Amino acid sequence: MEPKPFAGIFPYLVSPVDDQSGHVKDRVLGGLVEHLISAGVHGLSPLGSTGEYAFLTFEQRIEIVRTLVDAAAKRVPVVPAVAAFSTMDAIRQAGAFVNLGADGLIVILQTMFPLSRQEIEHYFEAVARAVLCPIVLYTNPALGTADLTPDMILTLSDVPNIRYVKDASGITGRILTILNRAAGRMSVFAASAHIPLLVFMLGGVGWMAGPASIIPGQCVRLYDLYRAGQLEQALALQKRLWPINELFQKYSLAACIKAGLQLQGFDIGTPIPPQRHLPGEAFEEIRRALEEMGRAEAQ
Amino acid sequence: MEPKPFAGIFPYLVSPVDDQSGHVKDRVLGGLVEHLISAGVHGLSPLGSTGEYAFLTFEQRIEIVRTLVDAAAKRVPVVPAVAAFSTMDAIRQAGAFVNLGADGLIVILQTMFPLSRQEIEHYFEAVARAVLCPIVLYTNPALGTADLTPDMILTLSDVPNIRYVKDASGITGRILTILNRAAGRMSVFAASAHIPLLVFMLGGVGWMAGPASIIPGQCVRLYDLYRAGQLEQALALQKRLWPINELFQKYSLAACIKAGLQLQGFDIGTPIPPQRHLPGEAFEEIRRALEEMGRAEAQ
Amino acid sequence: MEPKPFAGIFPYLVSPVDDQSGHVKDRVLGGLVEHLISAGVHGLSPLGSTGEYAFLTFEQRIEIVRTLVDAAAKRVPVVPAVAAFSTMDAIRQAGAFVNLGADGLIVILQTMFPLSRQEIEHYFEAVARAVLCPIVLYTNPALGTADLTPDMILTLSDVPNIRYVKDASGITGRILTILNRAAGRMSVFAASAHIPLLVFMLGGVGWMAGPASIIPGQCVRLYDLYRAGQLEQALALQKRLWPINELFQKYSLAACIKAGLQLQGFDIGTPIPPQRHLPGEAFEEIRRALEEMGRAEAQ
Amino acid sequence: MEPKPFAGIFPYLVSPVDDQSGHVKDRVLGGLVEHLISAGVHGLSPLGSTGEYAFLTFEQRIEIVRTLVDAAAKRVPVVPAVAAFSTMDAIRQAGAFVNLGADGLIVILQTMFPLSRQEIEHYFEAVARAVLCPIVLYTNPALGTADLTPDMILTLSDVPNIRYVKDASGITGRILTILNRAAGRMSVFAASAHIPLLVFMLGGVGWMAGPASIIPGQCVRLYDLYRAGQLEQALALQKRLWPINELFQKYSLAACIKAGLQLQGFDIGTPIPPQRHLPGEAFEEIRRALEEMGRAEAQ
Repeated sequence: MEPKPFAGIFPYLVSPVDDQSGHVKDRVLGGLVEHLISAGVHGLSPLGSTGEYAFLTFEQRIEIVRTLVDAAAKRVPVVPAVAAFSTMDAIRQAGAFVNLGADGLIVILQTMFPLSRQEIEHYFEAVARAVLCPIVLYTNPALGTADLTPDMILTLSDVPNIRYVKDASGITGRILTILNRAAGRMSVFAASAHIPLLVFMLGGVGWMAGPASIIPGQCVRLYDLYRAGQLEQALALQKRLWPINELFQKYSLAACIKAGLQLQGFDIGTPIPPQRHLPGEAFEEIRRALEEMGRAEAQ
Repeated sequence: MEPKPFAGIFPYLVSPVDDQSGHVKDRVLGGLVEHLISAGVHGLSPLGSTGEYAFLTFEQRIEIVRTLVDAAAKRVPVVPAVAAFSTMDAIRQAGAFVNLGADGLIVILQTMFPLSRQEIEHYFEAVARAVLCPIVLYTNPALGTADLTPDMILTLSDVPNIRYVKDASGITGRILTILNRAAGRMSVFAASAHIPLLVFMLGGVGWMAGPASIIPGQCVRLYDLYRAGQLEQALALQKRLWPINELFQKYSLAACIKAGLQLQGFDIGTPIPPQRHLPGEAFEEIRRALEEMGRAEAQ
Repeated sequence: MEPKPFAGIFPYLVSPVDDQSGHVKDRVLGGLVEHLISAGVHGLSPLGSTGEYAFLTFEQRIEIVRTLVDAAAKRVPVVPAVAAFSTMDAIRQAGAFVNLGADGLIVILQTMFPLSRQEIEHYFEAVARAVLCPIVLYTNPALGTADLTPDMILTLSDVPNIRYVKDASGITGRILTILNRAAGRMSVFAASAHIPLLVFMLGGVGWMAGPASIIPGQCVRLYDLYRAGQLEQALALQKRLWPINELFQKYSLAACIKAGLQLQGFDIGTPIPPQRHLPGEAFEEIRRALEEMGRAEAQ
Repeated sequence: MEPKPFAGIFPYLVSPVDDQSGHVKDRVLGGLVEHLISAGVHGLSPLGSTGEYAFLTFEQRIEIVRTLVDAAAKRVPVVPAVAAFSTMDAIRQAGAFVNLGADGLIVILQTMFPLSRQEIEHYFEAVARAVLCPIVLYTNPALGTADLTPDMILTLSDVPNIRYVKDASGITGRILTILNRAAGRMSVFAASAHIPLLVFMLGGVGWMAGPASIIPGQCVRLYDLYRAGQLEQALALQKRLWPINELFQKYSLAACIKAGLQLQGFDIGTPIPPQRHLPGEAFEEIRRALEEMGRAEAQ
């Protein structure tokens, strides 16, 4: 049976890994999932950029997907990211995640040597054809992944299960180009580099992002206000939420979300070495931003 | 007397220069001004990026401002761009343009060696303090001008006549950051790299752009629909207009606007050498886009 | 017992992998090793950039190091590259390679999020301290690895077994800076982006490079001529060899070396998918360059 | 009569401009010329990158060329740089400089919009054909000028008076490519981003550079040692001189040379605003480097 189309708020999850043993902190992750689902999120996406994909072994990825699928227990879809340099590695991850119960896959192509348009398209198509579930294309050139241009996305929309794209270029005009050209065949998720409400207005179906792990309730409310046609309130809320996005653009994304969750009491651990915890001032700045938002919400 | 605040559609004008003699084609420029004003535009901005500022002598700039001030005859404000590497050159241009009757100035800092934050801020402040008229800050790192970050814009908003900013970075989130932090002290104009309707929704006051020279009527309509609260129609129109922006991002901006005006019958001449006319296919593509938009409008 | 210091020509080896099964083509690799050793090379470096490190699984890397250690049979040192994003992954590779008999390690830090100077230095130091063998630092910002500045290299030269650096930035001045400042503590290998003879003249100890797989004899002769003080002949040979380097900068490095070996009769296979074979014209261009060099040599 | 081919040390001169009046400090400039000629330099190049070309008016350029031609009094050739965005501006500068007595011209193309290969080549060819004197092509992508690839340089070498190229890319391999392909038709000058002695060894004819203004005697000695075949001594001197190049790469080039000359007693003034003097620590660092070199020389 066809899964319900993905839409709404999909937090990008961090990967809590013990920095001595390398073991995934399953219990912490399970607790985080419970917290997010009770805040009303519409899906869960581990192993994306916030999930520090490049730093994880295959075994750690498996452990994280298994934990999430168990914890979510079909209440919301689990859509992990496959990230690889080689097609064979990507297909292996994709198969394993689907076997564990993933409801869809985000697909990321890491790059070393420059690739031609054909080589890039071939990778995404090969992964999509290796599974039956819906595929979310992901592009984030600033993090060293292949840049999927609107033309390439249009070509890939011919593959039946390639249905979504998450554009993290920060250039909102690209999203309008994609929606204008691939309307009906491709749905678009906002990334943190965009202003999510504006992407909703252009026709985007949701927001896949790290910050949604930290302020899940407000993100869900933003989406609900938009869906209810209460544009003025949505815009006011979006403006209040924006400083959180700014922080996550200022500091290394994954480290920042780990810091924010740590401040909220989750024993999430450090970024994976050689990355270190953010310096004390950054923690302070994040704490202040969260408090300020809390106060604004309370009014 | 204080001029009316700048708002609405301000086409960025091309600089029609005879490529043999170097003379400004005053009559062609005058005709273009008449055409734009009768289409309802709210202001005119020569000597910006579309105006090929880097390619012009001081004398050519003077001639262009004089022609525009005469042709506009106070019906709409004329806000030319000052663009220079040195503070002294910028102040000289600013004084000359104001003496000729300019109603405000866009200020651009071209860069050669890397500049410190203090050096950049000093330039803009020095030009602003040398005149009495309102100043529009302009930043477009892709064209080799100094990048004005939100922090720098906030600092500069303390100078009384620095009132506007035109951000051409394409990162729409920056505009929300500026509006959140400098609300009431700084108004924002969209550039072509942004989706103008979204900038209006965030609180932007208008659109300064090259494409508005080619499709002035539709741009004015977009602005009017937004102002009238007819958001649905505005969004539909914005989607139809977007392919024109895409073209102007694909091809060199100034060359593209010159081609579009040539196709509409204005004897605007070539881009300033060593730049050449766009190749034939590009002209064809622009012609088709304009026709398609015309058809869509007619329905 | 301390190994003899590394010096001379160390070809960067390709990774011949069957693109259906993912198995390493051990026999082809063994044949290549025999060919290179009989041409007089001074060492062998698998798993570097030419070795497509980012595309390989841990198991494939193990298989390649084992094959090389066996085939070299202590006639020349085997110095494979460790390449990872996480410190833990790098240490695991390092330990495994040394256990298999590697004589030294090149260490590469792949990057995703920006890293601080401390984070970068920590990675290299941690890997070096985990083994006893000599370490070669490697930096190649163009391929998405951490950039090791001269200051960082100087700091790392305090770690006793960090003895070598291979700078692939192409900025030859950097090598002089390193040699001026870390003289006696750090030896420098040229990369293909530099003119190797000039690096020898500055005090460099050798050349680690992909092209040395294709023209091993000429590379060894260049080194020998330099060592014998026959500078004029060395310069003439260097000038004749340079077109090969140019080709390998024009086309994707690994694909180019695989093409060159294929043309020389080694059944090396394709670049690892999604990468494809170079197009036919590129093969033709490589064939012509090799023939031309052959003719020049014969005279 | 044909001028003697350009060869040897050509200091890039700073542009001493009074930061209140904008007047060129003719007397200071004349004194500097006398100092450099008595140190043995082989030519003088004003208005290059060290000369802050982008910050100068046409009138200031004229004044500087006139002062130099007068001060040099035919003892060494004066080869100023023409730098412009438009072909017409470049031809105007070229004609004026030649009329004032310039012996050759360096030609620089500043860029705003991306230019095609044809557009770039056309600019250089047009300027060269407008004068009779020898032309030096200059390329320095890091400073926003058009990048002249080896292929383009080869094409331009067909224009009879285009005889020299100064490559400031820092990629020394490019110089070997140019010399291999355009041997006999194009002579190459080193820029500060290269190690000059290595460029001499590859067949380069000299060094055009800012640092030669500060340490003219040592630069001339380096060139003389190379010409006399005393390679070992040349290499030792080159190594001692290198820290000066490093400093000039660390700090903004023109500001750094102005600071160095100020420290040597020349009342050269500040960099042209909005640029400011280097901070005190930088002055201190430059002072120490000059002293250290002085001590080394004295031994």
